[in-house]
This record gives sequence, C-alpha cells and structure tokens, in this order.
Amino acid sequence: MSRRTESPDELVARARDGEARAIGRLISQVEDGSSLLREVMAALTPYAGRAHVVGLTGSPGVGKSTSTNALVAELRGRDLRVGVLAIDPSSPYSGGALLGDRIRMSEHATDPGVFIRSMAARGHLGGVSRATPQALRVLDAAGCDVILVETVGVGQSEVEIARLADTTIVLLAPGMGDGIQAAKAGILEIGDVYVINKADRDGADQVRRDLRSMLALAERPEGAWRPPVLKTVASAGEGAAEVVDAIDAHRAWAGESGELERRRVRRARDEIEAIALTALRERWGSVDEGNRLDGLAAAVVAGESDPYAAADGLLDD
Amino acid sequence: MSRRTESPDELVARARDGEARAIGRLISQVEDGSSLLREVMAALTPYAGRAHVVGLTGSPGVGKSTSTNALVAELRGRDLRVGVLAIDPSSPYSGGALLGDRIRMSEHATDPGVFIRSMAARGHLGGVSRATPQALRVLDAAGCDVILVETVGVGQSEVEIARLADTTIVLLAPGMGDGIQAAKAGILEIGDVYVINKADRDGADQVRRDLRSMLALAERPEGAWRPPVLKTVASAGEGAAEVVDAIDAHRAWAGESGELERRRVRRARDEIEAIALTALRERWGSVDEGNRLDGLAAAVVAGESDPYAAADGLLDD
Repeated sequence: MSRRTESPDELVARARDGEARAIGRLISQVEDGSSLLREVMAALTPYAGRAHVVGLTGSPGVGKSTSTNALVAELRGRDLRVGVLAIDPSSPYSGGALLGDRIRMSEHATDPGVFIRSMAARGHLGGVSRATPQALRVLDAAGCDVILVETVGVGQSEVEIARLADTTIVLLAPGMGDGIQAAKAGILEIGDVYVINKADRDGADQVRRDLRSMLALAERPEGAWRPPVLKTVASAGEGAAEVVDAIDAHRAWAGESGELERRRVRRARDEIEAIALTALRERWGSVDEGNRLDGLAAAVVAGESDPYAAADGLLDD
Repeated sequence: MSRRTESPDELVARARDGEARAIGRLISQVEDGSSLLREVMAALTPYAGRAHVVGLTGSPGVGKSTSTNALVAELRGRDLRVGVLAIDPSSPYSGGALLGDRIRMSEHATDPGVFIRSMAARGHLGGVSRATPQALRVLDAAGCDVILVETVGVGQSEVEIARLADTTIVLLAPGMGDGIQAAKAGILEIGDVYVINKADRDGADQVRRDLRSMLALAERPEGAWRPPVLKTVASAGEGAAEVVDAIDAHRAWAGESGELERRRVRRARDEIEAIALTALRERWGSVDEGNRLDGLAAAVVAGESDPYAAADGLLDD
C-alpha cells in the first residue's frame, strides 16, 4: 500500500465516505499534534456540529465495555452511525492505551457503521486525553450520529467526561462496595441518565433506591431535567433500548431548553482555551525564546523573586 | 476572639513563631485565592527554600495515614519540625476535604512541632490541589524542616505529587490484587524510596522481590540514584527509622548531584506557569472583557470558526 501523504482535504473527504482508515489517520494526527492539525481542523469545520456526544463513566467493574457494546448494537439497530472513543487512564509515562481497539468490541469490528478507537490519557493529568475534543470533532465531521466516550471513573475523569458530553450516563452495579460511596458523591451532579447494570444480581434494587433517594435531595428548578435511573443486564443486551430512549429524551429536552447549546459552547470554550494555553506553554518553554520560564523559576528557587512576580514577568513579555 | 484582619507580614511573622492558627490562616488564603495572595507570597519569599518536601503515595488500603503517622513520630524524635499536607482526591464539586485535620493523626494533634492540614483537590482536574505548591511555600517559610505531602494514588495524582516533591515515597502492601499491577507501571518511574508496608503479612517478601526485579530492568546511568525497597509495619512503628534514613540519603545524593536544584526549578516553573495561566483564563473569561472566550466558542459551535483559529484570536488580543 502506498503511503503517499494525503492532504487534510482528501483525508476528510474519505473520512466522510466512512473510510475507517482515513478516520483513524485523522485521529492519529490529532493525538500526535501533527503539524497539519490546523489545516485538518479547518477542513473539518463545515461538517462538524451534528453528532450527539454521550459520555459513559463508572467505577472499574460496573461493565462499561459490555454496556458500550450493548448500546452500539441498539444504536446500529436504529440505523445510526456510531463512533466510540475509549479513554484509557493509563499512566502518562507508559504511553500506549491499555486495551487494543481490535480486541475490544470485536462484535462490531467489521461493521462499517461503527468506528472504535482507544485513546491513552498520556501527557494530560486527569485521565481524559487532551486530544479528546479534537477526536470528537473528527468523528462528528465523519458523519457519526452518536459518539460514545467511555472512561473509567477514577480521579476526576468522570467530571472531565461530563464537561465534554451532551449527555452523560453514569453506570453503577450492585456489590461494588458501599453502594454509592460518599467519596463518589460527585457522580450525583454529573449524570443525565443513571444505569444500574448487572441488574440480575442481588442488591440492584437497593442500589436503585439509594441512588433515587440521594438524587431526590438535589434541588431542581421547575422544568429542569430529572435524571432517570434505569436497570440493564448489558451482557444479555437487556435494557439497552430504554437507555437509548433516555438519551433521546435528554437530547430533546436539552435542545429545547438551551442546555445543549450551553454545553457545546462550554466544550468549544474548553477546547479553544486548551489550544491557546498549550501554544503559550510552548512559547514560554521553548529554547528559542531563551527559555524565559526556566530563568524565572531559577530566580524563585534562589529567593530573588516570588512566583506571582515571576508570573507577571511572563505575562508582560 | 477578635477577627481583626492581620496584614500578610503580621501573619507570616506569627507563622514563623510556629503559631498554628496563623499557618492555617495563610493556607486558607492560598486555598481561597485571597486577594492578599500576592502580598502573602512576597512576604514568605525571604524564608522559603529550606524545607525538604517528601511526597507519599500509594493505592487505597496500603496504609498511607498510618505510615505518615509513623514517619511524623520518627521525624519528631529527631527534633525536626514537620508539616503534613493530606490531599484528598474528592470531587471538585463536593468541596470539603473528606478527612478532617483533627480526626486524622490525633496522636500529633497537640504537638506544636507538627502542623497538619487536609486539602481538597477541588477545582483542579487531576487530584492534586492547585494550591498545593503555595501551601508548601507557607509551611516552608513557617520553618518546617520536612513537609510530607500525602495523596492516594488514583488517576495521575501520584505523578503530580512526584513533580512537586524533593523525594517521593511509593507505598505498597501485600495482598492488594496483582502485586504491582501493569496499570500502575508508572510508579516504577516516580519512586525515590519504595516501602512495602504491612510487612508482617503473607506475601510481603514476594512483593519486594517482584518490585526489585522490575526496578532492576530500568537502565540507570553511572551515579544515578538506586531506589531502595524497604519494609515497614507502620501500625507498630517498625521500619520508620530506616525510611527516614533513606529520605536523608536521597536528599544528600540529590543535593550533590544537582537533582534537588533541578526538581526545585521544575516545581517553581510549574507554579509560575499555573499562576500565569490562571491569570490569563480569568482575563479571557471575565465579563469586563466582554467575555471574549464565550464569543469565540459560540462562533466555533455555529461552524463559523474552528478552535485553532479561535485560539489565535484569543492570543492576538
């Protein structure tokens, strides 16, 4: 196969035709911070803004991969094109994603209406890849109707996913310790749809009751979305239709209430800010600029300056 | 008690006299982003740079609090002033630290030579509080000889702690699943001292052997630090003296080799950068500036611009 370099426009055209290799190459350019990235993003712009981004998060062991699989099957049954981004919160040092794209979700591996990609969280403290918003943009422009972004809920990664998503699904399962742990109280504020997976196991109804009573404590203004608490047995595909219906209902509400627009502006805001801050950090830390930041840091360590004065110096440049 | 507002200089003077209330108030100002922060930091500068910062991290259940307790006792036995910052990776939404300062480490609660503070990781994606470097600066200027920064190793928080610390201790314990999990391979690159706690339990020697053979695989140049692997029973205080000796040895090596200076410059660099980036984000997002960022984000969502072009616009202002 020839490895001729394709222009961003060619790649985007082929991605829009559903060619998995082109989509994959665009996401790689996004991940690697390719020098073509600006051109790629500009080429994607006319086609972006249509996909519904669904975040899927939960503690290890609740069945995220199985649930993703079941949701993909249900969405495909409704004739929708689906993208899946699985974010692996692996160490920034270890590099590669823990789970291969091909090993996972082999059921859908040959379906041209499904594009699956694992991304490592490398280089970004917090668990969600820095490149995720841009990868979403690629899948969106490539014509995905729904994009599932799946991540394990450790650290603050679930909060980061919620900031990216149009609709956030929080997965729970019975027998995962103290039901809804106090330490995970944050999940009560991020879920648009709650799913108790492994609902055929003992304790599922208890988890549902506990969750519902905790959700009931939140004050919600008139007309606010009230997150449903559904039950699934993802390994048997049970309940997936209800989850997709709930996503649809949330999407409809969010569209009418203005919440969808609000979330998308926030997502774009985060994305622009991250790009601008990355550019600034590169500028400050680059050797060409005499490594201004290292000089200021040495002055702080030597007690000749304090960090605020040093930051002022950096911004004055 | 009168709540007269004290000047930063007064507070710093009282903190340097070891007055816990003054230290606590300075750290609160740091956490809250007080408007006095610049003045406070300037007032601290002449006194900072002496404390040795020791990071302590490990998975939930390895005995971090007990180990911190044992190390504090050992350091106090050597007549050193000790600061403890316990970083709680609680949700950024939930706000308060999970563990109260007073409930924890009650053994040392009345010792004027020990200052203990819990900090929530709120407002900062990743698990380590944004305010940690400044809180270290407060404890440093207040005359602490050693500052222990303790955090649970979830997400990338252990990597963040390693970036802050002069010496990083990684705690392990037998019976915590698959020994040293592949997913945690990153710990092999951050520890300066490894401690197998709960060494009276079955499997401790196996964990030690496994860890040593994994550490042996790393290529280390001539003269590099070779991290020791120690055993403790923190609940009985066993092994704490050897851990403190290892910290001392690492400190001596780091001072001679230039590594200590390198790490402190990196810490100051991170701190300056964080302050500058926070200032920029506030400027970009402030209503006074017509909320430039929101306007750019709305244009991206409307498909009129792409995020790179928008970031250029932000930086050109």
